[in-house]
Amino acid sequence: MSNIETRMSNWLKENRARGARLLQILVQENSTRGNESGAQAIIIEKCRQLGLTLDIWEIGGEELKKHPAFCCDRNDFEGNPNLVAVLKGAGGGKSIILNGHIDVVPVGDELNWNQDPFSGHIECGRLYGRGATDMKGGTVAMLLAIESIIATGTKLNGDIIFQSVIEEESGGAGTLAAVLRGYKADGAIIPEPTNMKIFPKQQGSMWFRITVKGKAAHGGTRYEGISAIEKSQLVFERLQQLEKDRNAKITDPLYDQIPIPIPINIGKITSGQWPSSVPDTAIIEGRMGVAPEETIEHAKRDMENCLKDLCREDAWLSEHPLKIEWFGGRWLPGSLNDDHMLIKELSESYLEIKGETPIIEASPWGTDGGILSTVGGTPVVVFGPGTTEIAHDANEYIILEEMFAASEIIARTLIRWCGVQKE
Amino acid sequence: MSNIETRMSNWLKENRARGARLLQILVQENSTRGNESGAQAIIIEKCRQLGLTLDIWEIGGEELKKHPAFCCDRNDFEGNPNLVAVLKGAGGGKSIILNGHIDVVPVGDELNWNQDPFSGHIECGRLYGRGATDMKGGTVAMLLAIESIIATGTKLNGDIIFQSVIEEESGGAGTLAAVLRGYKADGAIIPEPTNMKIFPKQQGSMWFRITVKGKAAHGGTRYEGISAIEKSQLVFERLQQLEKDRNAKITDPLYDQIPIPIPINIGKITSGQWPSSVPDTAIIEGRMGVAPEETIEHAKRDMENCLKDLCREDAWLSEHPLKIEWFGGRWLPGSLNDDHMLIKELSESYLEIKGETPIIEASPWGTDGGILSTVGGTPVVVFGPGTTEIAHDANEYIILEEMFAASEIIARTLIRWCGVQKE
Repeated sequence: MSNIETRMSNWLKENRARGARLLQILVQENSTRGNESGAQAIIIEKCRQLGLTLDIWEIGGEELKKHPAFCCDRNDFEGNPNLVAVLKGAGGGKSIILNGHIDVVPVGDELNWNQDPFSGHIECGRLYGRGATDMKGGTVAMLLAIESIIATGTKLNGDIIFQSVIEEESGGAGTLAAVLRGYKADGAIIPEPTNMKIFPKQQGSMWFRITVKGKAAHGGTRYEGISAIEKSQLVFERLQQLEKDRNAKITDPLYDQIPIPIPINIGKITSGQWPSSVPDTAIIEGRMGVAPEETIEHAKRDMENCLKDLCREDAWLSEHPLKIEWFGGRWLPGSLNDDHMLIKELSESYLEIKGETPIIEASPWGTDGGILSTVGGTPVVVFGPGTTEIAHDANEYIILEEMFAASEIIARTLIRWCGVQKE
Repeated sequence: MSNIETRMSNWLKENRARGARLLQILVQENSTRGNESGAQAIIIEKCRQLGLTLDIWEIGGEELKKHPAFCCDRNDFEGNPNLVAVLKGAGGGKSIILNGHIDVVPVGDELNWNQDPFSGHIECGRLYGRGATDMKGGTVAMLLAIESIIATGTKLNGDIIFQSVIEEESGGAGTLAAVLRGYKADGAIIPEPTNMKIFPKQQGSMWFRITVKGKAAHGGTRYEGISAIEKSQLVFERLQQLEKDRNAKITDPLYDQIPIPIPINIGKITSGQWPSSVPDTAIIEGRMGVAPEETIEHAKRDMENCLKDLCREDAWLSEHPLKIEWFGGRWLPGSLNDDHMLIKELSESYLEIKGETPIIEASPWGTDGGILSTVGGTPVVVFGPGTTEIAHDANEYIILEEMFAASEIIARTLIRWCGVQKE
């Protein structure tokens, strides 16, 4: 271990309490969509203290909104800025983007939480709260890595471009805005919760909304109506079959350990207004996974054809066809060869810190990496602490030990990737 | 045809336009739950003009709310009164309650309506709008019948007790309040939309709410969660089977022509908050039919046992059992022998006016008749214009011709039942 690596490693060990505290106050700031400013302010202040060059702006404008990859149903970004904070290198090294999102998903049914969803409570080495895993823990890991470089007086050749963006959970408008603002690099790490696995390939995904029409009637003579809920059951069955068919075609060994490589998730259904009426409309919303080498358009056609088949075969639906909309979130798929230098250097750092070779898999979900790579032309690897089992769930938490390990692995990768000036 | 009957018949023919106009302004007053006052005011004014003895009051109070048949989730009845208007007889005749409800169900998806749901538009002999059939048309038929008696100078022996109540669509608190206020009679007609069939037996019904628990997860790793929507599909299947089993036991010939005598209607489902999360909770609401001779308690046990079986057989549900609540609306079943004098006199009047024998069936839905008969001890027959196919549906309408026919049949039944003083 080099002198620099030792110093950074020591600094990270000595500053764990501060790291945990930073994550705690970040989790305590509810940053669900439209409420990102409080948590973002904490990160801005941290970057200011680190002496980074700050670029804080509210996203929007014609170029963003007319971009083909823009996919967003939010009109107002006012007061909830994006942040890019740059640690400028001396030159001659490779640059890297460290990208994290500040937005978190809603808490779900609060009754399922054992504590306030924004408690930031620490117990048995775990820090609890919405966003702890997805992905404020990853963001803190990046900030600690940067601080360990600065605090130890390490001078890099390449630039570190730290990004804290909004809107990842709803389709990546924040990262797209950063790309369009000109932020590109020779590589990027996104510390989404991969459970410390390295993901060179990322699934794309997009949201869909299916509207099912029925025919209202009094519940006492329900046979005179057509229940939109009953017709929705047919839709569920078809989508389950489509998911099976699509996944049967996935042969990439990176997906070997993943039960459903590209899932179709039904996230929401709303139907009916009155218990004793037959419901005349059902709205189904969900998320469709897109394979790393597939296009968004191909996946859309798969679902549209599947639902057209259903409509053809059902007498009612053939006259009252299902309506499908692609709305809200959309994440482009992304793919990096697993012999890319960034994967290699990250894997070596992992081996040194953890004492074992990392697991390399394909991501089961979309990230902003699709935009960074496809639109921004920046090679992306996704690697971070926390597990997806608990992201988006009640009692979300992160194991702090993992966050610190990720931080050290990222720090070591940074000095390799960007290069260090001779002392 | 007696002199009186001829005069009443002529009066009704001559006053059809006024009757249609009264229904029109009633339909134009949206009287969904909590908004009953405007339509009720029109009826109050009509009864005042007819010289009836008015009893207008806001329901509520301990006696009502603690009554075992009270079943209501509404706290505030202020400003939306009940009305009872009495045409006092000379004495010595049988009394009769004419009961109609002023509340209407919500309009559903407005896009399914060809016109404003409260238009009162008349075209090709049909009057359109929410409540036209269920049951402002029936109420106007009763008011015209009463007016034809008054306008022709006919003096009855028995009392006519006209009731315009709130809350029928949500469990009958309005009629229960009228019963507890002391209104009972030797018989009652409720002109709910029976499509001019005579219903001596009425199905009871009640609302249920089933809460299904799942386990949230990120949609990209949906196999790590348990979808409350998928578990709801199991509930749907079981309830469909339960409906089949319960209806297989119905042997009453009055139900011979009814496809599903006592339906279980799923009226509503709400699940999930986010397209790309696995939903952790689903709320299912619906209406369960109760056979005329069955008790509410027996039907409840049927469903509770059915869902308990499901929970026993499903690994997840056995640890996260379904929660079932009986909430909101509940209508007691009711049953009258079909040789009851009220059925006979109504049938004779029907035969005279329509020139054919009426169809006698059991009602496929609950009405306030259950409360009138079970709590109030008043024999009830349900008979009225309009069809349940279009009650609670978009583009609800009533055929005005049927409303006028019902009015004349009711008027003729009234003079037979109550008796007429010699001229």
